[in-house]
Amino acid sequence: MRIVLIHSGGLDSTVLLYKLRADGHEVRCLGVDYGQRHRRELDAGQAICHDLGVEYRIADLRGLRPLLAGSALTDDVPVPDGHYTDETMKATIVPNRNMIMLSAAIGWAVSLRYDAVAYAAHAGDHTIYPDCRPAFVEAVRSAARLCDWRPIELITPFVDQAKADIVRIGAGLGVPFERTWSCYKGGQVHCGTCGTCVERREAFEKAGLADPTVYSGQ
Amino acid sequence: MRIVLIHSGGLDSTVLLYKLRADGHEVRCLGVDYGQRHRRELDAGQAICHDLGVEYRIADLRGLRPLLAGSALTDDVPVPDGHYTDETMKATIVPNRNMIMLSAAIGWAVSLRYDAVAYAAHAGDHTIYPDCRPAFVEAVRSAARLCDWRPIELITPFVDQAKADIVRIGAGLGVPFERTWSCYKGGQVHCGTCGTCVERREAFEKAGLADPTVYSGQ
Repeated sequence: MRIVLIHSGGLDSTVLLYKLRADGHEVRCLGVDYGQRHRRELDAGQAICHDLGVEYRIADLRGLRPLLAGSALTDDVPVPDGHYTDETMKATIVPNRNMIMLSAAIGWAVSLRYDAVAYAAHAGDHTIYPDCRPAFVEAVRSAARLCDWRPIELITPFVDQAKADIVRIGAGLGVPFERTWSCYKGGQVHCGTCGTCVERREAFEKAGLADPTVYSGQ
Repeated sequence: MRIVLIHSGGLDSTVLLYKLRADGHEVRCLGVDYGQRHRRELDAGQAICHDLGVEYRIADLRGLRPLLAGSALTDDVPVPDGHYTDETMKATIVPNRNMIMLSAAIGWAVSLRYDAVAYAAHAGDHTIYPDCRPAFVEAVRSAARLCDWRPIELITPFVDQAKADIVRIGAGLGVPFERTWSCYKGGQVHCGTCGTCVERREAFEKAGLADPTVYSGQ
């Protein structure tokens, strides 16, 4: 199949990129600039795709930022430290982010006459992010099949998998984990204490694999 | 209810604005700048809302234009003349436009803690625009209920109605039709020959009402 992959520069979407290519698909990647606090993840996405010779484009959605106020990922609100599933992590929700990203990616797929859009929502996201829930994904899948005269499929193989499973799959595919960027803050290295850093560390521990990430203070 | 209305400055969404207010709802309007060829419809939307004292914001989606190539509404492709339902009108499809617009409007509604998003898709749109079909609207409705921890409703009262019905409803509500803008071209007055002008003229004829629109060449 010919697939547009939403690629954040993070661990999950990078593993999915390697998996789709290993499965024989033709892939183009789309990063999304929604006015996040830093560009580390976009730079990571670009570098990873460059190494593979995969096209990487950025959907520039900064124009929506005035409408989508109140998230610690875009506004002058502190990024919370703690566990990924803590209630405090709801400060990192960007209103309707996934539908916005998916609709842009589906639009690009229609324009390219591609067959599908892939994204790497996984089970660990559901507790905090409403728009990672399987029922939400199913609804968008239905919409993607109807938005054009040619249906666009939605490929979400990790939606019921834990992040540790994704790490295991990635290790088997030779994913350069050290090149991926998860941290919500934008330092020189991963902070190690924000929700997504805590989740990343845990995933390697649970997978029983060495974590090549450099965390602040190590 | 408190409702974000996608308001194009055209006839259908202006009638819906008047209807929602007549039904007692609190409404804010969202125009969408997707890099269309002209700003006549955005200017019309702004003026109509200004007269009513309704907030009007523009979702700036011009950053997506490089990804959504090939439409006569955005690119250097001629706007076809003819009937709205002609096969040639498919040149005016912007890839996945409605999902992109709806997802931005839903994001704003989540951010405002509003209850619903309304848009004025109607039965006449279905033959050309895949993303006006009732099944598509249903899929987005499901997604909108799940995209946040608070469900957002999707209000589409015209989805099974003909444009002549909408004209009749608008006449009853005192809608200033002459202030709305439908034409795909961006002239001083409506061209009268593009698909959406033809559909507009027909709607007034079928409704048996005088058309206050000034068309080119009259």
